[in-house]
Amino acid sequence: MAGNRGVVYTGAGSVEIRDIDYPDLVLREGPGVPKENVGRKCEHGVILKVITTNICGSDQHMVRGRTTAPEGLVLGHEILGEVIEVGRDVEFVKKGDIASVPFNIACGRCVMCQEQKTHICLNTNPERAGAAYGYVDMGGWVGGQSEYVMVPYADFQLLVFPDRDVAMDKVLDLTMLSDIFPTGYHGAYSAGVKTGSTVYIAGAGPVGLAAAHSAQLLGASRVIVGDLQDERLKQAESFGCETVNVSKHDRLSEQIEDLLGVDEVDCAVDAVGFEASGHGADAGEQPAAVLNSIMDVTTAGGKLGIPGLYVTEDPGASDKDAQLGTLKVRLGLGWAKAHTFVTGQTPAMKYNRDLMKAILSGRADIAKAVNATVISLDEAPDGYQDFDKGAAKKFVIDPHGSLK
Amino acid sequence: MAGNRGVVYTGAGSVEIRDIDYPDLVLREGPGVPKENVGRKCEHGVILKVITTNICGSDQHMVRGRTTAPEGLVLGHEILGEVIEVGRDVEFVKKGDIASVPFNIACGRCVMCQEQKTHICLNTNPERAGAAYGYVDMGGWVGGQSEYVMVPYADFQLLVFPDRDVAMDKVLDLTMLSDIFPTGYHGAYSAGVKTGSTVYIAGAGPVGLAAAHSAQLLGASRVIVGDLQDERLKQAESFGCETVNVSKHDRLSEQIEDLLGVDEVDCAVDAVGFEASGHGADAGEQPAAVLNSIMDVTTAGGKLGIPGLYVTEDPGASDKDAQLGTLKVRLGLGWAKAHTFVTGQTPAMKYNRDLMKAILSGRADIAKAVNATVISLDEAPDGYQDFDKGAAKKFVIDPHGSLK
Amino acid sequence: MAGNRGVVYTGAGSVEIRDIDYPDLVLREGPGVPKENVGRKCEHGVILKVITTNICGSDQHMVRGRTTAPEGLVLGHEILGEVIEVGRDVEFVKKGDIASVPFNIACGRCVMCQEQKTHICLNTNPERAGAAYGYVDMGGWVGGQSEYVMVPYADFQLLVFPDRDVAMDKVLDLTMLSDIFPTGYHGAYSAGVKTGSTVYIAGAGPVGLAAAHSAQLLGASRVIVGDLQDERLKQAESFGCETVNVSKHDRLSEQIEDLLGVDEVDCAVDAVGFEASGHGADAGEQPAAVLNSIMDVTTAGGKLGIPGLYVTEDPGASDKDAQLGTLKVRLGLGWAKAHTFVTGQTPAMKYNRDLMKAILSGRADIAKAVNATVISLDEAPDGYQDFDKGAAKKFVIDPHGSLK
Amino acid sequence: MAGNRGVVYTGAGSVEIRDIDYPDLVLREGPGVPKENVGRKCEHGVILKVITTNICGSDQHMVRGRTTAPEGLVLGHEILGEVIEVGRDVEFVKKGDIASVPFNIACGRCVMCQEQKTHICLNTNPERAGAAYGYVDMGGWVGGQSEYVMVPYADFQLLVFPDRDVAMDKVLDLTMLSDIFPTGYHGAYSAGVKTGSTVYIAGAGPVGLAAAHSAQLLGASRVIVGDLQDERLKQAESFGCETVNVSKHDRLSEQIEDLLGVDEVDCAVDAVGFEASGHGADAGEQPAAVLNSIMDVTTAGGKLGIPGLYVTEDPGASDKDAQLGTLKVRLGLGWAKAHTFVTGQTPAMKYNRDLMKAILSGRADIAKAVNATVISLDEAPDGYQDFDKGAAKKFVIDPHGSLK
Repeated sequence: MAGNRGVVYTGAGSVEIRDIDYPDLVLREGPGVPKENVGRKCEHGVILKVITTNICGSDQHMVRGRTTAPEGLVLGHEILGEVIEVGRDVEFVKKGDIASVPFNIACGRCVMCQEQKTHICLNTNPERAGAAYGYVDMGGWVGGQSEYVMVPYADFQLLVFPDRDVAMDKVLDLTMLSDIFPTGYHGAYSAGVKTGSTVYIAGAGPVGLAAAHSAQLLGASRVIVGDLQDERLKQAESFGCETVNVSKHDRLSEQIEDLLGVDEVDCAVDAVGFEASGHGADAGEQPAAVLNSIMDVTTAGGKLGIPGLYVTEDPGASDKDAQLGTLKVRLGLGWAKAHTFVTGQTPAMKYNRDLMKAILSGRADIAKAVNATVISLDEAPDGYQDFDKGAAKKFVIDPHGSLK
Repeated sequence: MAGNRGVVYTGAGSVEIRDIDYPDLVLREGPGVPKENVGRKCEHGVILKVITTNICGSDQHMVRGRTTAPEGLVLGHEILGEVIEVGRDVEFVKKGDIASVPFNIACGRCVMCQEQKTHICLNTNPERAGAAYGYVDMGGWVGGQSEYVMVPYADFQLLVFPDRDVAMDKVLDLTMLSDIFPTGYHGAYSAGVKTGSTVYIAGAGPVGLAAAHSAQLLGASRVIVGDLQDERLKQAESFGCETVNVSKHDRLSEQIEDLLGVDEVDCAVDAVGFEASGHGADAGEQPAAVLNSIMDVTTAGGKLGIPGLYVTEDPGASDKDAQLGTLKVRLGLGWAKAHTFVTGQTPAMKYNRDLMKAILSGRADIAKAVNATVISLDEAPDGYQDFDKGAAKKFVIDPHGSLK
Repeated sequence: MAGNRGVVYTGAGSVEIRDIDYPDLVLREGPGVPKENVGRKCEHGVILKVITTNICGSDQHMVRGRTTAPEGLVLGHEILGEVIEVGRDVEFVKKGDIASVPFNIACGRCVMCQEQKTHICLNTNPERAGAAYGYVDMGGWVGGQSEYVMVPYADFQLLVFPDRDVAMDKVLDLTMLSDIFPTGYHGAYSAGVKTGSTVYIAGAGPVGLAAAHSAQLLGASRVIVGDLQDERLKQAESFGCETVNVSKHDRLSEQIEDLLGVDEVDCAVDAVGFEASGHGADAGEQPAAVLNSIMDVTTAGGKLGIPGLYVTEDPGASDKDAQLGTLKVRLGLGWAKAHTFVTGQTPAMKYNRDLMKAILSGRADIAKAVNATVISLDEAPDGYQDFDKGAAKKFVIDPHGSLK
Repeated sequence: MAGNRGVVYTGAGSVEIRDIDYPDLVLREGPGVPKENVGRKCEHGVILKVITTNICGSDQHMVRGRTTAPEGLVLGHEILGEVIEVGRDVEFVKKGDIASVPFNIACGRCVMCQEQKTHICLNTNPERAGAAYGYVDMGGWVGGQSEYVMVPYADFQLLVFPDRDVAMDKVLDLTMLSDIFPTGYHGAYSAGVKTGSTVYIAGAGPVGLAAAHSAQLLGASRVIVGDLQDERLKQAESFGCETVNVSKHDRLSEQIEDLLGVDEVDCAVDAVGFEASGHGADAGEQPAAVLNSIMDVTTAGGKLGIPGLYVTEDPGASDKDAQLGTLKVRLGLGWAKAHTFVTGQTPAMKYNRDLMKAILSGRADIAKAVNATVISLDEAPDGYQDFDKGAAKKFVIDPHGSLK
């Protein structure tokens, strides 16, 4: 029988490559698996040989110890692979298919899935609405930063690519369909970006860059990206964005006015989340800083897309309120400007097919936008470290050396 | 020349009936009129003889001294009247027309008005987007709790009733079209209420009652209204709502479960705003209490309609953050549940025509729902006091005795 | 082993009750089953003991010989029943559940189902997009006007009622959820009916009546129903609709003006389809008559909901064009009025849960609106005849005598 | 006093440059002016010195004698100019402003304008909903293919460019904002084009090319344009479209399959209208040919955007039905595929500001896409002739030589 190796969370600040169980069509007992999910049969599932699996910014929250993730958790929810085994109740997916796996695990049978809200599936996580691979509080499903992984509800979930060779040619783009590209797109889409919009994206990490590229696809006339680090901003400039370094000024609106001639944009995206820093030099961590600043610079009546993660438990927060996810939000300002706030995980399946078509036709260049950088499985721990330091790279793990 | 009398704000806790200027087609200097608006010509306007004008909960915020409203301000933004004089640029409205006045003053010419966002008109208030009659920071337009009032941009703004006699028969319903009915409707609409929805409305004041009735019109299967006062809850029950007294329990979700069998609703409306109290006995003022509680009881993926007012300056707040409208919001919870928050003033013109049709056909019974209670102009100061004490009534001022 | 009996189409003008196969979890060879569907395994399916199954107007098209339906076809696509056997891939539906079956058979796994377009599922009918029970050209699935029926993809498809006893109390309403209520609702919804709308519904058969009741639920201020038969119009009047007998006048717009004071409505629904008659006395069959007349009476910018069936093959049509579904449409008029035409089968699952909630809370009274009339299985052939003559009744077959 | 010259329709097949009245702020008696509009005062209007004014395909319908346009009509509804005189009731537009004029004349005060449906304004044309400059049955407003033109309701209607010099640099793009770019965009938008869509555009005239470029802006992955003439198709290829010559094949679906590998697209646009030809060689005029063919090639559940003009009176049609706008439409096919048909004039104001922003930022290259070609006013009659022959050019008249 085949072995398996994966990226395992081993306590705050640390991940290791370890031998892990080779998957079968059952969710077995393990770190973070809710009792009700132990032993769950998945004849609707498949086994994937992982071709690519990416490190996500939200993995970093766990690795930094800013969540209650259990040690021993196999990480990884951005997965693209080849189907090598098919459960008996899988009807349409076939061995040999190459497919992207949406990071939200969804049954395709509950009312939420019926309404395309796969981010809050009611059946895959007994503890709350919504599940994911290799993530704290997300149902205990085994992560995919590994050689092999099990994907349940495969007929519903897998986005099978129409042509195997074309898929391998574009694999660095297609690997972004599991999470980051839909998540960035959802941010821009839910901010109401349309033809001609001026857009501000807070954060030049991979989600921010994906949101910026998505804003371009949605027809934005001007896309401004803000971050604290010049290297990340250069990455944004490399595909046509304008940028502001928010560590160098304490009034974002003035930075925007310098670029646009007006001090507000039509739409804004928070691609940072709760580990936000204040603006200006040495401002330090301020969980609501980004959210409050985008209210300031978004026009009245505008929408704020908030794919950046906010949590209900943050053991690393500096005050008690923030530890429970209660933040100081300038609600009066947002209300006076009649803003709409769109929060939450992205239902990746709502967007991944459209984005696949944009990639395959050459319309979307997401790998270039996020600076996809291939590493081996053994290099993953270093990748986590580099990414944590703010490297302007999206690390793509190639566990089988398939991309050589 | 005719005289004029109106309700004037005379300092925290106090309003008086005073002689005021008879209006002409110019916005003249006065309390709270921004310099740029002084002397503004309004040949696009009309003079209305006021038939009815209602006291609004948001007037109370000013009268309680919870805003920076200047003394001498003529109050009143809920107006229905007869056209008695027409500016030279008015082409379609005619003398003798009876019409409802949307509370948001809007030019009908800027990009916001073109997109039906009359609540954030760019041309009627030089200080920010959005204007209103008789309201602090809303452009300085003279209020309409008076015998006569000037309405600018009349062709665009006035909702003229098709038949004068029918209008007078239904005037207690139609007078709710200027603000409260559209505002309640907007709350329910932006919470996503549709056929079959279960809905929670926080607050049984007039906006809450209007939201509850609107939820019924939108097809809700169950409408639950929460408040601290039994008398107001009885009013909600009078037209088919279920109720919970939130002063008697500290877990709203349990109160809801008692009614529905599940502890969450599909949609929720915050019809309270920043002067909120905590749940349970003697909880005291907690500005974000309502907002945080409706996150708790709204299903994942739900929308929160927030017509309740939140402000950027609240001199009466207990802490410095709240004085600037910065509140402690459980953003982590909302994000985990993928909620959408819809805030801001209501664009009354987006809804008032449809609601007029519902009233005229007998589908909507809004006067009964909010317990419309007619008073004379001289009784207005008492009305303000009663309303402040929580009277389950919507006071309708009849300045000319037209409704006898 | 249990037997089974069902309503079988036996040639133009004729149906009979016959012994038919007891279902198992396979789609076996039979009349109208496409080769590719023969032998299809359905471990995702369940066997239902049918509690109620309704005769649909679209069944009549087949029985009248206006389609290419094969003899021997078991009819029936409006089904409500109790689960008595569960396939191995069924995870959430359980034996004893009482559920409504959406008439569109849908896999829950293809891109159309993922987007809530279950009316054009790509996997259940090898010959075109979309499948149904007991219907010509709809994949060959065995109809449910019978004692027992197999329902595939049960976890995705079945709308399980939350409480068995409550369901039985409301069964005459709930039986309308499989087709007619969602179909009528879709007509009204896609015509853009909202609070205050004035609405014209062409046709007072069950779909028209369901559309009229749906328009009420959606908040319409005035609902006018047109038909050729006074008895059917009386049924519409019984729940608050206004009516016009279109056989008595050749200008529908004048009939509408008599009621509304204006000669156009906001929204219109074609609940008749291709077997339409012209307006006025003895006008005879004119396939586009209804469609053309609703363009005439719908306001500029309006939407036309067209749930009434139009077909690609009509052997009974009087001219060659109409035999292929090519009709004389006043497209110039529609274009000049900037109309939008929404055609096609209804995705029942998009609406059935909301409508169930409206029924269970007492908001919707659909059984009364369509005049639900219970008959035994043996009475079904007579029911078909009465319905064909225009009886103002919706026949509900009770094959096991469960409703006594 | 200044003179004025303009393009005048002088009977079927003929236009001439003639001296015409210099405009003032009144709509005076003239060819095609409805009695109720004669003498209409327009103090809300401005006089424009025309900078550019384009020849439109819909002008050709009149010039070919396919409408009931009266002789003497001054043509032209695509206008960009400089404000040189301002009515007394104009409040925000100023002398010296350079602006685009939406082709639909709209009051900004009626319910349709309030809802952004300026294509069916109720106040500018006493004969039907909707008005335009220089067009048959559109209210009698004087056309703008001239040196000077009056524009009513200027505050509402004019799209003033933010910077005069930038505007003149981009004037060949900006001149497309009055009609053709919004019209093409509306076609693509109402066909549901979004990120990743595959799109078929019927017609490579200027509207088709504008629809194709709009589809690109909306994120289409593949845009296929069909026409009868290779020269026009080459123009489409010049900006990245794929093409099919529909005169060379009688099965459009096969031509599409050759390009896409599947025989259907996600979205289709009819940019031809009623003067359509059948597919294949020598098929001749068939008014519904384009509409029927796009049903054939659009996927089930798709939307058809129909900006191509269909008329209620076509004196040049070959049969009586078509003369009244009644066409043989394959409605059965459309219904079986659950298509939605979106017809009618485009509300230009709904899109022109967004498109302006896309032009000014360099995102949109509409002048290049439609091959804008500048001619003098005196060259306009030749331009009409060339365009009628199918020249792959969009003629832009420069009446004052402003573009040299």
